Formats: sequence, C-alpha cells, structure tokens
Amino acid sequence: MQEIGMVGLGRMGGAMARRLQRKGFQVVGFDQNPQAARAAELVAADTLEHLVSLLSPPRLVWLMLPAGEATEKTLEALAILLAPGDLLVDGGNAYYKDSQRRAAWLAERGLLFADVGVSGGVWGLEEGYGLMVGGPAEVASRLRPFLEALAPSPDSGWVHVGPVGAGHFAKMVHNGIEYGMMQALAEGLHLLQKKREFQIDLAALTQAWRHGTVIRSWLLDLVAQGLAEDPELKEIAPVVADSGEGRWTVQEAVELGVGVPVIAQALFSRFESQDKEGYDRRLLALMRRMFGGHAVERPA
Amino acid sequence: MQEIGMVGLGRMGGAMARRLQRKGFQVVGFDQNPQAARAAELVAADTLEHLVSLLSPPRLVWLMLPAGEATEKTLEALAILLAPGDLLVDGGNAYYKDSQRRAAWLAERGLLFADVGVSGGVWGLEEGYGLMVGGPAEVASRLRPFLEALAPSPDSGWVHVGPVGAGHFAKMVHNGIEYGMMQALAEGLHLLQKKREFQIDLAALTQAWRHGTVIRSWLLDLVAQGLAEDPELKEIAPVVADSGEGRWTVQEAVELGVGVPVIAQALFSRFESQDKEGYDRRLLALMRRMFGGHAVERPA
Amino acid sequence: MQEIGMVGLGRMGGAMARRLQRKGFQVVGFDQNPQAARAAELVAADTLEHLVSLLSPPRLVWLMLPAGEATEKTLEALAILLAPGDLLVDGGNAYYKDSQRRAAWLAERGLLFADVGVSGGVWGLEEGYGLMVGGPAEVASRLRPFLEALAPSPDSGWVHVGPVGAGHFAKMVHNGIEYGMMQALAEGLHLLQKKREFQIDLAALTQAWRHGTVIRSWLLDLVAQGLAEDPELKEIAPVVADSGEGRWTVQEAVELGVGVPVIAQALFSRFESQDKEGYDRRLLALMRRMFGGHAVERPA
Amino acid sequence: MQEIGMVGLGRMGGAMARRLQRKGFQVVGFDQNPQAARAAELVAADTLEHLVSLLSPPRLVWLMLPAGEATEKTLEALAILLAPGDLLVDGGNAYYKDSQRRAAWLAERGLLFADVGVSGGVWGLEEGYGLMVGGPAEVASRLRPFLEALAPSPDSGWVHVGPVGAGHFAKMVHNGIEYGMMQALAEGLHLLQKKREFQIDLAALTQAWRHGTVIRSWLLDLVAQGLAEDPELKEIAPVVADSGEGRWTVQEAVELGVGVPVIAQALFSRFESQDKEGYDRRLLALMRRMFGGHAVERPA
Repeated sequence: MQEIGMVGLGRMGGAMARRLQRKGFQVVGFDQNPQAARAAELVAADTLEHLVSLLSPPRLVWLMLPAGEATEKTLEALAILLAPGDLLVDGGNAYYKDSQRRAAWLAERGLLFADVGVSGGVWGLEEGYGLMVGGPAEVASRLRPFLEALAPSPDSGWVHVGPVGAGHFAKMVHNGIEYGMMQALAEGLHLLQKKREFQIDLAALTQAWRHGTVIRSWLLDLVAQGLAEDPELKEIAPVVADSGEGRWTVQEAVELGVGVPVIAQALFSRFESQDKEGYDRRLLALMRRMFGGHAVERPA
Repeated sequence: MQEIGMVGLGRMGGAMARRLQRKGFQVVGFDQNPQAARAAELVAADTLEHLVSLLSPPRLVWLMLPAGEATEKTLEALAILLAPGDLLVDGGNAYYKDSQRRAAWLAERGLLFADVGVSGGVWGLEEGYGLMVGGPAEVASRLRPFLEALAPSPDSGWVHVGPVGAGHFAKMVHNGIEYGMMQALAEGLHLLQKKREFQIDLAALTQAWRHGTVIRSWLLDLVAQGLAEDPELKEIAPVVADSGEGRWTVQEAVELGVGVPVIAQALFSRFESQDKEGYDRRLLALMRRMFGGHAVERPA
Repeated sequence: MQEIGMVGLGRMGGAMARRLQRKGFQVVGFDQNPQAARAAELVAADTLEHLVSLLSPPRLVWLMLPAGEATEKTLEALAILLAPGDLLVDGGNAYYKDSQRRAAWLAERGLLFADVGVSGGVWGLEEGYGLMVGGPAEVASRLRPFLEALAPSPDSGWVHVGPVGAGHFAKMVHNGIEYGMMQALAEGLHLLQKKREFQIDLAALTQAWRHGTVIRSWLLDLVAQGLAEDPELKEIAPVVADSGEGRWTVQEAVELGVGVPVIAQALFSRFESQDKEGYDRRLLALMRRMFGGHAVERPA
Repeated sequence: MQEIGMVGLGRMGGAMARRLQRKGFQVVGFDQNPQAARAAELVAADTLEHLVSLLSPPRLVWLMLPAGEATEKTLEALAILLAPGDLLVDGGNAYYKDSQRRAAWLAERGLLFADVGVSGGVWGLEEGYGLMVGGPAEVASRLRPFLEALAPSPDSGWVHVGPVGAGHFAKMVHNGIEYGMMQALAEGLHLLQKKREFQIDLAALTQAWRHGTVIRSWLLDLVAQGLAEDPELKEIAPVVADSGEGRWTVQEAVELGVGVPVIAQALFSRFESQDKEGYDRRLLALMRRMFGGHAVERPA
C-alpha cells in the first residue's frame, strides 16, 4: 500500500487526504492546528519530525499550505528532515518562479520536487480534482497513482504539463481564465437584473442555461445553485477578494508582451470593489467640476 | 400528433426540424433553397402558401432565418397567409426590440408571437438545444411540447423568461457572456503558448482541464477537441467575425448604464482582428515618432 | 452690427452671450428662467415670440439647451415663429442623428440649420470656446463672424467639420477622447497616491508636469489647480456622472465596428462609480464562496 | 561656472548637453560612439576615465543611457573611477527599484545618487524638459541649477518628488498616463476616420481642437502637425512599440491592487499590434467553427 504525508489539512488538504484514504492510500497528516488534524480523521503526526518518522523512504510529502512564507518555511524544515530520494510536492498556489527556485535548492540537497496545481475547491472530495504537474518525467510517474486517485477518474483530470514550474504556471493561467469567465457571467447577469421591465427570474434562467447552451459550465452550475438559494444576494456585500494567481497572470502577460484585456479587466473590477476610498473617482469628479462647473456629490 | 411549420432549414433550422421529427412531431418545412429542404428529409413545402395550406389551424410556424430583412419579410408574408389564433415563433437571433415591435404589429392582425432564443449550434441535433422563450404565458404553454423535445431533456434547458422580447434579450446576453468566456479562454491559452520555455502541449492540458477544474465548460470541451486535431491552428487566420448579439449587448449595457468591461473588450478584440487598416495604430506610431523621434515600421 | 438670438442662458449660453456682446454683437437672449436672463445682462426677451420679434430677418437663433426634450420642443416652437431663410443653430450636446433629423424637418419649412459642438466649459467666456460646425458651406460662412468671436482667436479653435450632423458627431467624439484622457490621468494619480512609501505631493508633481512633459494638457492644468486647493479631495464623493456623449461614442463605435477599449473603459468606470448596489460584485463573491468556500463580506 | 559630465549623447543626452551649454554650463561629454560626441559639439572625453579626469571634484556625472545593462555597467565603471562625494544622476528610463538598489550600492562607496525622470522627447532642446527628481533633499539642491536650466523656465517643469526611486517612479507613471492619453486620441480619431459619410478632414479638425477645447494638449498639437503633413499615414505601418515604463506601470498597479483599466488597455493594444501570429484570435475562430459551424478565414 502506498504512503503519503500530507502537510496542511485545511479546506483543500484535509479533503484531499480523505479522498486518498478512501481510495486505499496510507495517509499521514500534519497540521499546525491539531484541530484540523483530528477533523481529517487520519493518522496525525504531532510534528514534522513525527510525520517524517512515520513514513518509509523514499518518502512522499505533499504540502497544501498558503503560498508564501508558510510554504517556504515548511519546505526549509522538511529539507533538513528528509533524506535524498524523498519527494516533496507543493500542491498550493505558489508563484511558479518560487517553485523553480525551490526545486533547484532542494535538488542541491538530493531532494526531488514537483509543483502541482490543484483545482476543484471544496467539491473535490466528492467530484475529484483537476491536477497540473510540473517536474521531471520520472517524478510525474512516481506521482501517478496519487494523481489517478485525486482526479475525477484515473484517466482524466490530471496532466504532466512540463518541467518544474509548469504545473504552477498552468494553474496560474487556469485561475486567470477563471477570473475572466466569472466576470463575463457576472456582467451578463447584472445586465439581465438591471432590465427591470422584464423582471427576469435569474435562478430559473441560469438553471435552464445549464443544459444545451454554449455557455454551460461548472461556474454556471454553481451560480444557478446559489441563485436558487438567494436570488437577490442580500447577504453578500459587493466586495470581491483576489488572490495571487490573478495578479501573476497579468504580470506574466505583461512580461511576455501578451495582451490579456479580459483577464486584466476582471482583476481590476475586483480591485475597484475593494477600494473604499476611490481617489481616482474623486479626481474625475474634480475634473468635471473644474472644467464644466458640474456639481459633485459630497461624501456621506 | 402535433404539427409545426419550420421556415428556414439551414444549419440550425434543418437540425431542429429533424430533432422534432425524431421525437414524433409532424414537421412541414420550407426553405427558399430547395436543396436545403431536400437535405432536411421532411415534408417540404414549395412556397410559404403551400406550407400554410399543409398545416391545420391553429397553426404554429417557427422561423429560423437570419435576423434582419429575411426575418422581417417572411413575417410580413406569413401575416397575410395566416389566420387569427395562429402562432408565429422567431427562433433566430433577432434584436429584442424588433421582436417587441413585430409582436405588436402581428397582434393587430390577431396573430400570436413568441421570441425564442436558441443556443447550441451544430450540436443541438444530438445534444438538444437551450431555449429561452419570450411571450405571454399561454403562448409559452402552447409551445411546451416543442420546447421539451428540442431541449436536452423535457425538464431542462428551456425556460419561459418573460414577456415578448425577453427571450431574445436573454439570448443576446447569453451570447455576450459567450464572447467573454471565449476571450478568457483564448487569452489564457495564448499566454501558455507564448511561454516557450515550457513547451506546453495545449491539447493535453485542455483535455485534462475538462475534468475537476473550476473552468470546466462546454467551450473548453470544444477547444480541447479542436486542439487535438490541430494544435497550431495553422489553417485558421487570426480573424474573428462577430454577429449582432455581441454588439447589442454592449449597446444595451451602455443604455442601461451597466458596466460590461469584459464583454466589451471581447467584442473590441474581434473588431481589431477584422481591421486590416489599423488607422488607430498608425496614429500611435505617428505620435511616438513626433515626440520621441522613435522609428516607425513601414507598411509591407 | 450683427444680431443673434440666444436661447438658453445657463452656464454655457449665458457666458457665450456675454462674450459675443463684448465683441460687439447685438445679442437678444431668452431663458425660461427670468433670473438667468437678468444675470446675463443683455436684451432679454420675455418669450420666444418676443425674441423673434426683436431680430431682423434673416434671423440667427442659437440654442444652448439641454439635449433631448428641451431642445426638441424649442426647435418646434421656433419653427412656427421663424420665416424662410432664418437660421437655427443647436450649440448643445445633441445626438448627431437627432440633428440630422431636425435639419431635414426644418428644411421642409424653409429654415436653415447648423449643429455646432461647443467645448470649453466655464472657462470659455475668458479663454474662448472650441467650436465644431456641421451644415452646408454657406451656413458655415454665415456663422463665421460669430465663430471667430466665440473662439479663442479669429483664426483658431473653430472648424467647419462637414454636413449637418458632423458638428455634433465631432463634439461627441471629442467628449469620448476627454473621457479617456481624464481616466488616464485619474489612474496614474491614483497609483501615485497609493505608493504610500514615497509620500508624493501630487499638487507639486502635477504642477511640474504642466511644463515640458509629454502629458501636458489643459486637463492637467485643471487637476494641478484643483489639487493645489484640496489635495486629498475630502469634500468630493467618489461618484462620477456621465452624459450622453460618452455613451453615444461607444454605441457609435460598436455600430461602426471600431474598437474603443479605452473610451469604453472610462465610461464603465463611471457607471461602476454610480452603482451602489453592485449586483455583479455580489455574484462574483457568491461564486468564490460556492467553489472555494471563501468567506464573503456581509453588507454594512 | 558649473561643470557637468554627460554620459550618453544620443537623442536625449546630446540635446540636454547642448541646452546646458547654451545656458552657460561647462559640459564634458562621453558617448561610446565617437560620432555622437562630435555631433554634440562639446568637450568630448575619449573614455570614462578621461571624462572623470576632466571634471573637478565634487563631480556631477549625469547618465542618459538605455535602461538596463548599459546603465548598470556604466554605473559600475564610474563607481570605481569617482571619489566620495561625487554625484551620479540617472536621467534614463530605469525601473525605480533598480534605482533604489543602485543608490544603496553606490552609497556604500560614498557616492551620491539621484534618479531623474526626464520627459519632453526631441523637443526638449528648444522647449525645455519636464524633470522629476528622486533623492535626498541636499542632492536635489545641488542639482537645482541644472534642473532650472533644463526645464522650460527656472521655476517650472521640475520637481523634487521624494526619496531615491521616486523620480523614476513618477516618470514611469507619467508614461503610463501618456499611453492612456495617446490611445484615447487614437481611438477617437479612428472613429472619425471610419465615419466615411462625413469625410472629415482630420488635420483641420485636430488643428481646431488645439484651441478652446477640453482635450487641448501637447499630444494633440503633435497629432495635428503630423496629420497636416500626411493625413492618411500611408507610410506608417500599424505597429506600435512599447517600452519598459508602460509595462512597469501596469505591473506596479497590480502589485498595489490599483485598477488601471485604461492604461492596461493601451498597453495591450500595443502588444496586439506587435503580434503577427494572433494565436488568441485563431483560437476564437476555432471555437466559433466548433460550436456554430461558422466558416473561418484561411491564412493568406
């Protein structure tokens, strides 16, 4: 039976650990929050040392941690504990250049590394995850049984994208596309909602759109379900968070000289939803007053 | 057995007629091109008069014609031939304000009208269509058996959106969303393609994305299939046509004061792909030369 | 001495009337608000009839009224009062297709018409206006003395653009460009303001930019002056109104198939600043919660 | 009399050296291309060593070199040749984070540094430059006579923006605004040009717009002049280069979470003008063929 150590047992890591267990894998888990480890119902290690000691070499340790410092520090700690030939996988949303840097640094210590972009959110436990692997071919081969178990079916939903970095790069672009698709849906539904004279039942319409149309998609499935529960979205404020991957997609596009008007607009819409101050808009109102004598609104 | 007259037996109308026949409906068809009528393998009328004479009142005549003059002229001709209580359906991509105008005009002649947005393209024959109906409730009821047969299944993929015009309005917005989603996919894949160092197999990646990811969608299914056949798209020029509905979506948004940055950008990208002259870009190059002495490229 | 009747003595019309008087023209004014007429310090007519009676044929009557109903009704009223050979000028911000329609309708009554786009805002009284004339060449000739007086200098700042409609068309596009320029300035200054570590004095920077830089412009002059008075814009709410011309520019571009990404974005930014409800953003937050379990903000 | 060493005597540096000479400064110049040095008509050094030897301490050496390697290497070379207390100025278009790094590194060697954004292009020799200074207050004071001479007038067109990096940051944003303004002008003129029925003389219209309008600006002055010479722009290809600063502006905005829709669109329009391959557009055409059976254009 195959063993895996899962570090980070939150919304993503916890569910992935459970899915692997259900498929018959031996999963040892660690989370700095002991509560999370208990919730995951698996062999829980108390420390990273403990986790490593519970696995037989050559080990596989899979991280599902927030990108940035949490991932960096944990990789550093594990690098000391693991032995040459062990394999570290970062399944979080790291910046692909960080993954390239980390792979090089771990290789100097004899450790293998793969970056795996994981998509699917909270539904992955039941429906399976989409997985994009970056790393050498032999590493991808070693991961294959795990990928086949995590994916919706053994032969679909996972792919070896390319060398180290390519997995997180593909996931980054996946999320950029996601931003654009989400924004397209939101704009269209906004327009329907503002067409007051038709009093369109958006829950019914999106439900119908799920079948037979060109725009049928999983995001539409979710919207239809969400609107069925609360069509007016009264309990949700018009503020949209963003994460690193949308930003990196735009920055990478700028670096490569590739136009991404839609992905960038989707990102900027989120920025604007987060900006309470609106200095840009105050400036525009100022200009209108200056040249045309147009009245400005006063702050509330 | 229920009867329907189908006018316009092209890619959409021909396939819809066949699907209805397969489901047991009596379909009488007419197309100004006799070839199309023969290809559709149904009772073919030689003229609109003939078509009307083959149907028993109260009749249902469904148009699948290009929006604009073809639809307008045919409605005018049928208005003279039909009798009070007969029902005309426009399943083409008409502008919703035209549909409202036409409904009012037909009502003066005692004729009923429904506007039905139909999505699904060339796949609808086998997979069923998405249908969005505008018109009075009793008209929608009368159409129900046909909608149930055309949709992917009797209880999914069709919806009575609202009063006359609402069906084409919903279809218009559907296509606006489609523009945005398509552009998001194209931008993301463009970025992956330009990341030369990773040499990503886009056919394999999009195939994997179809399962388990957040962006899984029918458009992605089509892209994966298309790239499997020709990953470099060597036989396709970088020119993208647009149709009325993308344009109307943006114009309606402007009229209602609703921001649609992503849908508009998707439309403008198509415009730019169609513009061989590039006067805007020549002007930009001119400005750069004027203020900075920067070299300009000469036309080929 | 040359005579002109000015109808509408608000911010624009009142100042234009004064400028013409200062330059020695005989101006008869009318405003439905007697207060405005008195403020303009000119020969004030009590009614349109009175205004017409005070002018000698062939008359020139220049309207500076809000586009839409006010302009339409006043043109209709004047059409009855005026005599063949009289000339009506619409200097307001009418939609160019309305101007074309009105010109045709007035021509049937033997009346001449010109559409004149007027730019310059509240500064025009002292600095002169930019004027764009649409109409036949002989009408433009007849207007020439007035254009020379209203413009910053007799030989600059006015132009006969083309046939009827071309004046308002050019003004419409002028305003579209204005939207884009304003937004570019606002975005750049927003970015500078958000770079907290540099604590940039935006009033000083924009003042310096007014001289020698590539972006020196009248809008920048106004921004520098406005920021000198109130750099934090504390008294201005982040809400930006829009007027017909920005909207028409985008709709015309869509009709002609011309990409205007920047002008459209500038318009959409204003729409978003006006939208308190944010249904699009609520939808985006909903989607994030649905697929990723991400927390949403609650409405305040 | 005040001395300055100018390194890089190209379009910008050569003209700045001449302007300083005309104002009575002692300018020693160096360019790796001896031709450029001769053209600038000043005391020309044969090498950097020679240049340094011709200046009396504390020296001022001002670089006008391409950003990136040329600037980096020259700063490294000069750091060895100069003495503590000497002042290095980078007037090129460097990335502000590079300038911050370089200042720190030069400070370790006892050398002072200022980053000065210079705007004005090829017109600066006659009209003066806009200058944005980053660095300590005492360094800015030391530069003051030079700034006063380079600017359009001693008391306008230059500003001490803030600490090291702030000068290049302000110039970067200046160029971002420039991109947006240029694009706004290009879009508007494109729309006017496509309105064939009005046959608008764009040279005459832009000439008129220069006076009295809201959009009057130096860029408009240049466009009017350029169109007067060649209204159809037949000799200019529709390809627009971009430089680092537009890209950095967008990347910085993404980093700070500031929406810059217009500046980003202006940048993407340039990218698209440079992209002969159009893989994104081929993908869009593919999708349309896949779902709708729409014909695609074949490559020429």
